[in-house]
Amino acid sequence: MNQDTICAIATAQGGAIGTIRVSGPQAIEITSSIFTPMQGKPLTERKAYTLTFGKISSAKGETIDEVLVSLFRAPHSYTGEDCTEIMCHGSSYILQQVMQLLIQSGCRSALPGEYTQRAFLNGKMDLSQAEAVADLIASSSAATHRLAMSQMRGGFSKELTGLRNQLLHFTSLLELELDFSDHEELEFANRDELNELAVHIEQVITRLANSFNVGNAIKNGIPVAIIGETNAGKSTLLNALLNEEKAIVSDIHGTTRDVIEDTINLQGITFRFIDTAGIRQTTDTIESLGIKRTFQKMSQANIILWMVDSTDAKSQFNELKSEILPHCEEKKLMILFNKADLLLPKQKEELLSLFAGIEAEKLFISAKKRENISALESKLLQTAALPEISQNDVIVTNVRHYEALIHALDSIHRVQDGLQYGLSGDLISEDLRQCIFHLSDIVGEVTNDQVLQNIFKHFCIGK
Amino acid sequence: MNQDTICAIATAQGGAIGTIRVSGPQAIEITSSIFTPMQGKPLTERKAYTLTFGKISSAKGETIDEVLVSLFRAPHSYTGEDCTEIMCHGSSYILQQVMQLLIQSGCRSALPGEYTQRAFLNGKMDLSQAEAVADLIASSSAATHRLAMSQMRGGFSKELTGLRNQLLHFTSLLELELDFSDHEELEFANRDELNELAVHIEQVITRLANSFNVGNAIKNGIPVAIIGETNAGKSTLLNALLNEEKAIVSDIHGTTRDVIEDTINLQGITFRFIDTAGIRQTTDTIESLGIKRTFQKMSQANIILWMVDSTDAKSQFNELKSEILPHCEEKKLMILFNKADLLLPKQKEELLSLFAGIEAEKLFISAKKRENISALESKLLQTAALPEISQNDVIVTNVRHYEALIHALDSIHRVQDGLQYGLSGDLISEDLRQCIFHLSDIVGEVTNDQVLQNIFKHFCIGK
Repeated sequence: MNQDTICAIATAQGGAIGTIRVSGPQAIEITSSIFTPMQGKPLTERKAYTLTFGKISSAKGETIDEVLVSLFRAPHSYTGEDCTEIMCHGSSYILQQVMQLLIQSGCRSALPGEYTQRAFLNGKMDLSQAEAVADLIASSSAATHRLAMSQMRGGFSKELTGLRNQLLHFTSLLELELDFSDHEELEFANRDELNELAVHIEQVITRLANSFNVGNAIKNGIPVAIIGETNAGKSTLLNALLNEEKAIVSDIHGTTRDVIEDTINLQGITFRFIDTAGIRQTTDTIESLGIKRTFQKMSQANIILWMVDSTDAKSQFNELKSEILPHCEEKKLMILFNKADLLLPKQKEELLSLFAGIEAEKLFISAKKRENISALESKLLQTAALPEISQNDVIVTNVRHYEALIHALDSIHRVQDGLQYGLSGDLISEDLRQCIFHLSDIVGEVTNDQVLQNIFKHFCIGK
Repeated sequence: MNQDTICAIATAQGGAIGTIRVSGPQAIEITSSIFTPMQGKPLTERKAYTLTFGKISSAKGETIDEVLVSLFRAPHSYTGEDCTEIMCHGSSYILQQVMQLLIQSGCRSALPGEYTQRAFLNGKMDLSQAEAVADLIASSSAATHRLAMSQMRGGFSKELTGLRNQLLHFTSLLELELDFSDHEELEFANRDELNELAVHIEQVITRLANSFNVGNAIKNGIPVAIIGETNAGKSTLLNALLNEEKAIVSDIHGTTRDVIEDTINLQGITFRFIDTAGIRQTTDTIESLGIKRTFQKMSQANIILWMVDSTDAKSQFNELKSEILPHCEEKKLMILFNKADLLLPKQKEELLSLFAGIEAEKLFISAKKRENISALESKLLQTAALPEISQNDVIVTNVRHYEALIHALDSIHRVQDGLQYGLSGDLISEDLRQCIFHLSDIVGEVTNDQVLQNIFKHFCIGK
């Protein structure tokens, strides 16, 4: 339990309302010391889950603001501690003054994430749920929101807890055998059952680890590279997609100085468009750095949109084809014949036959006239092929969790090997512990203590 | 009473917490329709001034967020209507989703200021108090905060109401005389008392109107023009002031393209530095546009800081003096001998005797070495000579109020003239009504109805 009381401004600057959160053993007392209710009992004597209207005053008796104060008592609060929330007028001056008063009265300014950290330390949520709070606040699309909400509500934790409990049970049994190692014939842990369990757990962990690809695509957006000549109409296309769907655009400034990515939200799925240099200027020296870089970027994409200027396709087709196609293997390729409004039906046929040898989705569009843009969107969603996700699905979105799952998978493979080769209980137990350790790492629990606890809880043989 | 229920996001984008406000006759019902408490009674059956933890769900049953809902019942709320406040995780996606659900359930998206407008319409505050809410939120210094808080808490309104009640009383008596106009000898309203009142009211309104100069200086900052040669060290000085005091700087982009003003906060008083062109380049053609403009800007200032490069003062002194001084009448002039660290004591004496004929505060400083900057600050505060303001002082900061006061002053002068020349009650009554109208305009009341109401309330002679 933390002994100090923390305070922080929990709202962004510039709104009509500003909220300051106070949490800790002295939260109510400290808030009460600077707050005078407009009528009735002092704050310290009020019930939890009530609101009190009153004023915050400085030591000199000057009114800083008229505010509403929410009151929560441990353990029934977000952090599990006594808490207040002071809702002020959203003036940065007022908020700063109230913070100063709180600090003068014994609060400490909270560190980033310290409320959620306290919630975790006080057992209000596990580590993966705590991590989901940050994801939830950052969520900007239906899909990212759904994943974060599922994780915050503990879907992932429940699945892990189920696995862990089964593993703990067997570890306990194996470790019990060690206590009776004089009697070699004793085998508390049925090896067939353990093997069955290992197979089951391997499947579940594999499924969870595999879900990371989907989760990552949802969380960070599906990477799409648009390649083509500089005047093929890339930015016109992006604008067309935006205007058609009133989608959200934002600029993600990449780690490299020159990469600025556009993200577009289609039916709740985020597509992240990776900027590539136009190809035209480098066709003369096809091995130049520019084109190499474009290919590098293509390698990060799941989907490649090859934009073709339909009015000028033939001249460069063969050259481009031989350079581009090798980089599109294992990617989903779509060819967009742009400026298709300028083509006669016969020319369209010619184009199709020119590109006939290339296996890809092909679409005639006019980015400028916004023709066939909705067809393109459908194709993009179809090509992305993300599974329909509900709030009950457990999808891994966090790299830390993914790594822990991969480690757990290694351990469970070793358990399986150990069982196959008839290794002794203590060796298998060691791998089981490793597996439990990595799964527990996700929810933030210290495992070894728990293994011990579990043994004593179930068997309690009075040793 | 408004019949529709409004909703709005009341917090700025980007914080940990986002708050949505709902107000109107259906506020609780609509909020309850999208909100499921984690335990216990539905929202509609809960008491006012309570908080309820639960979840907001979409029509499809998908959880949008876990939230806290505050409940207020008319008339005990900010707007005087039934109200709820939904505190969500501060994700713009979540806030938008909750807004959509509220709107689908019958809310209307609120207009800017509509909550405070409703508070005014429902009699929770008068117009000048409502105006102060915006000032309070915008307040960025101790002084502006104090003024807005005083106004919001009704100090100004109380003073006006006092005046108005006295005026109403006399108007009632005068208008009563009209009803008995057959009996010319009847004089309900004692003319001497009325004259005394008019003198008193003239004094009060004059004091209030005069306070606008102070109020405006506090609200918008005390305008200070720094003039001098381009290399006299103006920006070095500003930086020195900033660093010494850890003051707040902001750029106010003026209405003219080229005016960017620095504001500096010294002990809660804002100084607004008006940029002027350096003088050196225009000394040859002293009548040039550039210097004219500088003089124009000087006319807007209360305080003029004449920065002198101490190492190069003599060459231009006579020329500058004859041009600058005429523009400094009625201003507070301070002469800053900058780069004073490079001077010998004897040179300082020479400078002082050179400038001896000019009546001004004189100060040796080194902006670069930050010498004597705190002395400059003291001088600035002293020169600004703003009265010490407490939260009980009534200071006018609003141009609309100032104009209404000036109109009221005109009317009360006409009342005084009318009394002096023995005009009839109906003519004096007309001017009194005008005066009441302008005072009432400040607090947003319709006056004529009130004059009538007051007559009937007090005299009720069954006509």
